[in-house]
Amino acid sequence: MPKIVDHNVRKKQIAEASWRVILEWGMEGATVRNIAKEAGLSLGALRHYFSTQEELLVYAMNLVIERATDRINKIAIQELPPKEKVLHILLEIVPTNAETMAEMEVWFAFTAYAKHKKEFFKAHHDGIYSGIRNLIEYLNQQNQLRKNLDKEMEIERLYAVVDGIALHAMIDSDRLNKDRINELFVYHIDSICVEG
Amino acid sequence: MPKIVDHNVRKKQIAEASWRVILEWGMEGATVRNIAKEAGLSLGALRHYFSTQEELLVYAMNLVIERATDRINKIAIQELPPKEKVLHILLEIVPTNAETMAEMEVWFAFTAYAKHKKEFFKAHHDGIYSGIRNLIEYLNQQNQLRKNLDKEMEIERLYAVVDGIALHAMIDSDRLNKDRINELFVYHIDSICVEG
Repeated sequence: MPKIVDHNVRKKQIAEASWRVILEWGMEGATVRNIAKEAGLSLGALRHYFSTQEELLVYAMNLVIERATDRINKIAIQELPPKEKVLHILLEIVPTNAETMAEMEVWFAFTAYAKHKKEFFKAHHDGIYSGIRNLIEYLNQQNQLRKNLDKEMEIERLYAVVDGIALHAMIDSDRLNKDRINELFVYHIDSICVEG
Repeated sequence: MPKIVDHNVRKKQIAEASWRVILEWGMEGATVRNIAKEAGLSLGALRHYFSTQEELLVYAMNLVIERATDRINKIAIQELPPKEKVLHILLEIVPTNAETMAEMEVWFAFTAYAKHKKEFFKAHHDGIYSGIRNLIEYLNQQNQLRKNLDKEMEIERLYAVVDGIALHAMIDSDRLNKDRINELFVYHIDSICVEG
């Protein structure tokens, strides 16, 4: 199987090159030509891996999602108090370091670009939305949620808080730095959970 | 003064043409040439009003902000119960009809595009952030806020909720329609305000 492995490794390298191009130039600069140059490949060699620009960009975005999912799954299986586990997962969704900030910028640039490509776009967002739903359900199963909450509203609100913070962290990472994001998530979780 | 009035009217018409181009084609299509065509002007005539693409786009975005500000100011001077006034203002910031949805899409496309043009970008966001600060301060002055809230955290959280909802309404307006947005804001306001 070495050939298939090489093929996938090379595809990931190309995807990473496309992230660097998007970070440097925005989606306007994310042409197949520029990405091939950044990856150190000829246009013909790149076309061997991705036959269209859209195929490459969708792959690159899915890799962002795959990496975030991997990080979240690693936390999900840890033995942690429920509120702490939820906090750690939320901190993986929003950008709090150079790596996740880059992912977020790529995601944001791609989202604006892909606005009219509804299928891909919605699929990704439904993924985050259902992930947030799982977190609220998990807190509920662990008897952590306060009484008299409307679960549907809490899912919708937490989803908004997460993406709002992600957006603002990207725009103004000086104000909304890692400590403040942490503080804000703790504040929100405490506001919907029982004490102790 | 008729000439100056004409000049400004024409600039607004060009800005509105640029919105239509952005909605149809995204920022990639928002070239001076395409905008001139949409506005029914020659390239030379358009250059009479805006000498560069950036000048035109900044003007078009500022017009979005100006219109939203006008709508908000009209509500601010109305005689309304405090919580209701805050609700109505929040509903003007997020997209709940075709007009505000178009504004939001233009803003979103522009934001991704202008990511590296920090000055303009931050100035706009600081405007929304300080507007949200005013709403929380207003609720506080009107003795509507619950005790034991952290005001700075509530400002940051409401800011995130507003932009998160705006983003999600744009992505999935079927789920996050006007009624659900209204319900969510009422839910959030009730969670931070005293009853009655």
